[in-house]
Amino acid sequence: KEVHELEWTLGEIEKGGYEHFMQKEIMEQPTALEDAMRGRVLPDDNKIVLGGLHDVMDDLRDADRVIIAACGTSWHSALVGEYLIEHFARTPVEVEYASEFRYRNPILRDGDVVLVISQSGETADTLAAVREAQRQGVMCLGICNVVGSTIARETDAGVYLHAGPEIGVASTKAFTAQVIVLAMIALKMAEDRTLSHAEFADAVHALASIPDKVRTTLEMDGQIEKMANIYRYSSNFLYLGRGFNFPVALEGALKLKEISYIHAEGYPAAEMKHGPIALIDRFMPVVFIALKDSTYDKVVSNIEEVAARDGSVIAITDEGNGELDELCEYVLRIPQTQEFLSPLLAVVPLQLLSYHIAVMRGCDVDQPRNLAKSVTVE
Amino acid sequence: KEVHELEWTLGEIEKGGYEHFMQKEIMEQPTALEDAMRGRVLPDDNKIVLGGLHDVMDDLRDADRVIIAACGTSWHSALVGEYLIEHFARTPVEVEYASEFRYRNPILRDGDVVLVISQSGETADTLAAVREAQRQGVMCLGICNVVGSTIARETDAGVYLHAGPEIGVASTKAFTAQVIVLAMIALKMAEDRTLSHAEFADAVHALASIPDKVRTTLEMDGQIEKMANIYRYSSNFLYLGRGFNFPVALEGALKLKEISYIHAEGYPAAEMKHGPIALIDRFMPVVFIALKDSTYDKVVSNIEEVAARDGSVIAITDEGNGELDELCEYVLRIPQTQEFLSPLLAVVPLQLLSYHIAVMRGCDVDQPRNLAKSVTVE
Repeated sequence: KEVHELEWTLGEIEKGGYEHFMQKEIMEQPTALEDAMRGRVLPDDNKIVLGGLHDVMDDLRDADRVIIAACGTSWHSALVGEYLIEHFARTPVEVEYASEFRYRNPILRDGDVVLVISQSGETADTLAAVREAQRQGVMCLGICNVVGSTIARETDAGVYLHAGPEIGVASTKAFTAQVIVLAMIALKMAEDRTLSHAEFADAVHALASIPDKVRTTLEMDGQIEKMANIYRYSSNFLYLGRGFNFPVALEGALKLKEISYIHAEGYPAAEMKHGPIALIDRFMPVVFIALKDSTYDKVVSNIEEVAARDGSVIAITDEGNGELDELCEYVLRIPQTQEFLSPLLAVVPLQLLSYHIAVMRGCDVDQPRNLAKSVTVE
Repeated sequence: KEVHELEWTLGEIEKGGYEHFMQKEIMEQPTALEDAMRGRVLPDDNKIVLGGLHDVMDDLRDADRVIIAACGTSWHSALVGEYLIEHFARTPVEVEYASEFRYRNPILRDGDVVLVISQSGETADTLAAVREAQRQGVMCLGICNVVGSTIARETDAGVYLHAGPEIGVASTKAFTAQVIVLAMIALKMAEDRTLSHAEFADAVHALASIPDKVRTTLEMDGQIEKMANIYRYSSNFLYLGRGFNFPVALEGALKLKEISYIHAEGYPAAEMKHGPIALIDRFMPVVFIALKDSTYDKVVSNIEEVAARDGSVIAITDEGNGELDELCEYVLRIPQTQEFLSPLLAVVPLQLLSYHIAVMRGCDVDQPRNLAKSVTVE
């Protein structure tokens, strides 16, 4: 009887047939988001249940101000969280780099709530922010992925991502899971207050439909791989977006930086004219998130300016929108959803783009040079 | 009788013997800062007098929250303003991109004060922020350079920079004048409240001594020109700083981007480990602002990490500090001052570095490609 030697290492088995953990983690986002919402988002009952925040939800709803402290990718999801909480709950939010927050004698007052975000739950600067909040006697909530991590233990209450282990150093599914948890928190804060019953129900249904829309978005993988074949030669990139998708521009740029070592930078699109546009020439690809929302026309005029200067534009827009085809080198179309959930879809092609570019440049995608998965020293 | 034809154009005469307006404006910062403080900072009387804010100062001191909205370089001075006002007056400050602020139904409450900053006083997004504040019935103050400009006219009260006309598209003296005006405002808010008489007097004297220290800092022009001769070949740059000088890192990067078209990016130094450090190799110069302040040791450990990865480090540190000489390619020493005023000195070598690099690269320093002096469209 012939013996087949298994040539898979344990690591490869764990990759579930994918070449890299990062690829696997990008691809499993639909299930990670389902897991993050399981038992929490209940569209049939028009309910959002966040057990971990049950005892503190009234305080959170009554907060004068929410201060979110985080680092890296979690800082980007914090920025989305700012837009979400301000939009739905109408509570002012201040986002801080955890490293800056802790060293500048932060102003915390009665009625303030600190919220920290960390995939690992061990990020040194973020943990120090928790301790600073507690030193000042202010309630501190956490959003972590790793169960039982230090930040999860030390915060007063919190929400786990339940996104499953994230092995790739460049965070992908943790980012989208953080954003969906922040959306649940924002909606829960707004329920029966700033949101009518109907608006809340609409938002809950939109949330529940997101995993399938991410699944659809992931189908553009082949198209993006072809694009990557061209853009892998670029040594610089700009990413621009506005509103809910301004942080997505930052996150897209960070992904490319981290794993492909291409100098990519994100900006709010309207800031382009205040400096970055000087960089635009035929060697500067610019990724625009140009969804048909409240600032679409402004973003299109930014695209026109880049195109007029021979910049190569990649646009992420809505399904069915053909208006940008002439202006742009590539147009990627994502499913329509409510504006507040669009970051969850818009970030996906950016993750795939950086993944494929990095692979083609021969970079070690899962263990990029100089980086650690969780930064447990300052 | 021999007739000498004057070969100076009007523009050259106005440049006062300098080759470019930007160079002139960098060099005239000591007098611009003196002008900005004239009649306002009175060290002999231990007083700060801001006539334009006289009628609103009580409201500003009692503010629950200050929201500063601005674009580009003014957004960077706004970030310094956040650190200044929170440090001295202990009033929470939120800094917003004017373009984002205006489009997201900003939350303004009773007791909030909006402050906008614009050199020209005509920046479209910033003007729209003024109108949004007024639509919501919230007091709006302005910091402008151009007397009688639209923002100066439409705000409820404000402070002029009195820095003289700024012609170079890349803002230099307006930035430092904005920072010194923000320092005056922060101190005035803190006077007899969060600051003791002695602390206030110390700060006023430190303010008054700044123009001479800027003069001393400018003497390193020749040294920086020599450095520029080397770094002009670089196609990327990182700028890192912390605390009061984190915004200076952003501003240094923006200057290089604007006039030399080199892709430079600024970051808070501690964020380096969360991504940007992947970019570090022997082709990536990194400028650190490493002053002997509360985070000096942390910044030095960041420098060590960059040096270990063959990055070329330029450090800006204090006069007399020789500790970084071994680790760094170049060390630039600036006069000592109180920590809150250090941005006014630290930014000067960064302005000079971008100026000289741009000149050596043959760029049109005063009229960089694609940029306008004031962005009066969205």
